[in-house]
Parts: sequence; C-alpha cells; structure tokens
Amino acid sequence: MVADEIKISDLKIVALAGGVGGAKLALGFYHYLQNQYPGQPANLFERLAIVGNTGDDMDDYLGLYICPDLDTLMYSLSGLANPATGWGIEGDSNQALQMLARYGHDNWFWLGDRDLATHLRRTQRLSQGARLTEITAELAAGVGITCQLLPMCDQPVRTLVHTVEAGILPFQEYFVRRRATDTVTGLTFQGVEQATISPEVRQAVSEADLILICPSNPYLSIEPILAVPGMRQLLGTTNRPSKRPIVVVSPIVGGQALKGPAAALMRTLGGEVQASALGVARYYAGFASHFVLDRQDAEQEAAIEALGFKVLLTDTIMKSLEDKMGLAKAILDWEQL
Amino acid sequence: MVADEIKISDLKIVALAGGVGGAKLALGFYHYLQNQYPGQPANLFERLAIVGNTGDDMDDYLGLYICPDLDTLMYSLSGLANPATGWGIEGDSNQALQMLARYGHDNWFWLGDRDLATHLRRTQRLSQGARLTEITAELAAGVGITCQLLPMCDQPVRTLVHTVEAGILPFQEYFVRRRATDTVTGLTFQGVEQATISPEVRQAVSEADLILICPSNPYLSIEPILAVPGMRQLLGTTNRPSKRPIVVVSPIVGGQALKGPAAALMRTLGGEVQASALGVARYYAGFASHFVLDRQDAEQEAAIEALGFKVLLTDTIMKSLEDKMGLAKAILDWEQL
Repeated sequence: MVADEIKISDLKIVALAGGVGGAKLALGFYHYLQNQYPGQPANLFERLAIVGNTGDDMDDYLGLYICPDLDTLMYSLSGLANPATGWGIEGDSNQALQMLARYGHDNWFWLGDRDLATHLRRTQRLSQGARLTEITAELAAGVGITCQLLPMCDQPVRTLVHTVEAGILPFQEYFVRRRATDTVTGLTFQGVEQATISPEVRQAVSEADLILICPSNPYLSIEPILAVPGMRQLLGTTNRPSKRPIVVVSPIVGGQALKGPAAALMRTLGGEVQASALGVARYYAGFASHFVLDRQDAEQEAAIEALGFKVLLTDTIMKSLEDKMGLAKAILDWEQL
Repeated sequence: MVADEIKISDLKIVALAGGVGGAKLALGFYHYLQNQYPGQPANLFERLAIVGNTGDDMDDYLGLYICPDLDTLMYSLSGLANPATGWGIEGDSNQALQMLARYGHDNWFWLGDRDLATHLRRTQRLSQGARLTEITAELAAGVGITCQLLPMCDQPVRTLVHTVEAGILPFQEYFVRRRATDTVTGLTFQGVEQATISPEVRQAVSEADLILICPSNPYLSIEPILAVPGMRQLLGTTNRPSKRPIVVVSPIVGGQALKGPAAALMRTLGGEVQASALGVARYYAGFASHFVLDRQDAEQEAAIEALGFKVLLTDTIMKSLEDKMGLAKAILDWEQL
C-alpha cells in the first residue's frame, strides 16, 4: 500500500531492470497490473514503464545492433521468451546461424531466426535516424506489449569489463563468449558522460509513484542505468506529498545470485567478504528506501533495517508466473510502502 | 569441339550469366565438366569461371547487401537451390520474415532464414573492406563450389528500369515488387562508368578458350556485364591462334522467354515486332560468333547464319539435370566450335 493511499489501479510504476533476473519481476508486475484493469490486454502505457539497461548492447555484431537486455524484457513481456533459458524466443530455429557457420562465421553469440528479425529491424530503423527509444516502442508494440519499455538512454553506453585474465572486455565478450569466468576488477561505462535522460524516461520517472529496482545485477545491470547523468537525482526526487519509495528486490538469496555473476562481483567489486542480501542493501543504502528480503535471509533483516531501509520479508524466488505475480502483489500490498 | 582441338579436360571456359535461366546452363556445364576430371568434387577453379550480373543487387535492403543473381548461381551450383523457383534455398524457412511482418516491415522481397546468412555475411565482409569478388569466392567455397564464381565487377552498378507506368525504378522494385508488369522504355546502368574489370575477371577471360553467353535476358542480365568499361573488348580479344568462339544460347525459344520478361523487352527495347531467337541473334550480331538455336526455331537458322553466326540446332529446354548436362555436352562436342 503506497503511503498516501493511491489505489493500485491508479499507481504509476517505473521499474529498472537488466536481463533475465529482472525480467522475471517485470513480468510479474506486468501481469498483476493487467489484472487490475478491464480489457485484455489492458493498456498499461501510463501505469508501468520498464527501463532497461543498454550497457550490454553490441553496436555491430554481423552488422547488427543488438540490445540483449531490452530483447529479454521484450520477449518476456510478450510471452515469446524461451522459459528454459530466460532469453531468446521459445522454439526459435537457427537456420541462419547454421548457414553462417558454413561461411566461416564464429557463432559465439546465439542468433535465432525470429530473433534476427528484431536485430535487423532495429538496425534498419537506427540507420534511418530513429532513436532507440522510438524503435524499442515500435518493436514492443509489434509483439503486443502494452506497457512502456524504455532503454535507459538513446546514446550508446558500453559496459567494459576489466578482468585479471583477459584485460578489458566488451560486456558480451566477457559474459557470453568467455562465460563470465574471468575475475572482474572494475567496470567502465564507456560513453555514459555523453548520455542524456530521454524525454520518455524523464516523464515516466517524474510521474511515478513507485520506483522498483528489479532483482538484477547491481553492478552490471542497474549501475549503468544509474550512471546516466542526472538519473540518480531524477529517481530520488518526487513531487508527491510524501517521499516516493524506491524499492529494491534483492538479486542475492541465500548467498547465491538468482542468475549470472552477481555473487562473484559482490566480492571483487563490492568488497564484500561474501555475497549477501545485506551486501546488496549496503550497495543501495542512502539511495533506495525499501528492501524486499527473502525469508531465507531473515537473519539479515535487522542489519538491513539498521542501514535505514524498511524491509519486507517474503518469498522472492520466482519460478512460475504465479510466483512472479505473487511477488508483485506482495510488494504492492506492503503496508509500509 | 573447339577449333584448335583442345581436349575438353584442358578447356578453359568463361560463362556470362544472370539469374535463374542462365544458372541452368551454368549448372549443366559445372556438372558435365566435373565428370571430365578425376575426384569428386573435381577442382574446376582453372577450368570454369562464371561471371554473374550484379546490376540487380540491392545495397541496403534492411541494411543488407543482396546479390540476387550471384546468390541464384551459388545456390544452383552448390545444389542448395529450390528447384521449384530456381532461386532461394530448398526447404528454407522464413521465421525472420514472419517476425519482421509483426514489426511492420513490408516483406516484398523474400528472405529465407538460411538465405539471410548469405546476406549478413556478405554485408559484414563488405563493411570490413573486402571486395565483392573476394567475398563471393569465400561464400562459394563455404558451400563447396569448386569453379570460380565472379561478380562482373567490384563496384556497385545499379540497373534502373525506365517504365511508362511508374517512372524510373530500381531493378528489384520493377522485377519483384511490381512483378515486371510495367512497360519498359529504357535501362540505365547507374555507376557503370566507374566500374572496372577485376583482376580475377581479366585473368579468367584472358585465358579462356571459349566464352559462353548463358540463356539469360540480354538486356537485364548480359548487357550490364558487357557495359563494364573494356569488357566487350576483353571478351572479343584472344591470344589463341584461332579466333575464340563466343557462343550464345538463345533465351528465347518458340517466341517465349525461358524465364522472366525477356520477350516483352525484345519488343520495347529491341525494336523487334515479336520476340524470337533471331531477335536475340540480331542483338549479339558482330560480337558473338556462335549461336545455339532450339530445334523448335529451326526455320530461323538461315536468317541467323546470314547474320554471320555458326548455328547449332539442338534441344535447349532444360528441365532435368540431364537436360542441362546434355546441352553442355552438345555445345562442347560441336564440330564448328
């Protein structure tokens, strides 16, 4: 329950998300909110805006402009996603990829045939001068998504991963090609100084009653978003009568990352002795106000509260769609929100 | 039998070809010559060079560089071609195309999923600075072709079709999008003045014992090749003791084009009252020396001879692979060659 008693059906929510982990909760909110409105699919354009990380993008893979996190969010929200992987399109074929192999192409990055259409269309529209925000909206509309899906900015920002074993790597080289096995000593968000907040992100965030930080990797997925100049201030400012909650859902449960290399990065980048929800809370302390903690980690509740957070203890592991919608409901029903 | 008694297994042949029609005879020669050499597949690199028209290319369809005639030749020679259409890859899926339609893309040009790999790889290699000739060789090697497949030049030459109904159209707009239904009043080969003969075409033609003009559209498929500055002279010149034959296989049989709009163009562009093999002969008179005429058109033999051609009367309709190889054999066995 948001503090000043806005009905759920009037709430405006902005969710920050990376790829697979974050997309689970984004999908939970999307479906839960759908059920609050008449009509299927209900139009959530004014109610829910999901801001995706674009630091993982590749500008020119086989000439294609690829946005893995935005694609994962889009395929999840549209119901196209492959449930086994969390990314890619369910049942997608790889005829193009097989043929590319005959031509000597090193297929280290998966490209499904339907998936290729997304990259081709995006690349074409960019070459025509359209902004990534506009293109993302077109693609999302094409697959029937009724909420806003927004890239964190329209300018290219590229996450460079500094590693012990292989020097500085573009994100997908680190993450996909080398399977996130290198020891990470630092990150650079190349180009972020030139990035600006888009009109669409500014409007959505300005009007939001609630900011949600999905259970995504803080360093690799959320930090690039927060690094866009002015973004932290925009998120932390509100014209609502009471302070607008910024709710973090921990991506670390029982000391493990829900997905990906977050746990390892908490040790090497976060200076934590071991990965924990408390470590996540330390990362967001002073910025976020509310923390959603898994019951498994109940023993950390007091320490997280001591950092200034209001804490919701609930089940956060999302396997089924019901789990995802249930977590959305639990957050929106939270009395302290 | 070539005039100075070179054995077939020592012959060097250059074939000029467009798309589907020309590819049939190119395939006939390819397979017939394969059978003259030990080893499967025999290496025909020094023996057979097929020079394809690139006037039909599209530089930027969905960001892709597409060479329809080279692709048709490549898919034919490699055995990948769809026998029902003559172009495209047999059994290719269209998952990307279906997804592109959801994104609002107007799918007027077919792109199969495996086919897409060809375009993606070619476009990537061009952006890396490779020449189209090099790239075509790489792609052909990738699908196991052992003869040379050469674009007519490395520079972009674009066939523009002047029509009564729709003004000046890029070739594929005329041919695919508008189904070649417009009345053609003229052609322009944009950029041809800047085109140059590639080292590979120069070497192959210089060394050839026989020049073959496949049954392709004279105006749309062969003329762009001949329009490359210096090409007519190069083809007509030989350092062999006797004059090198230039053999035309008529694309018009019984007054009909084997494929495509050649018959209509013979009337509007060629000034012929009706399409005929004789009209084709008039088009090539003074340049080519030998003419392969279908038995159906036997009554035109004397008139074609009167233009200065030696004429071979044989069956030229190619349905099966045996037909294609049979026509290649008939030409190579021709006493007057």
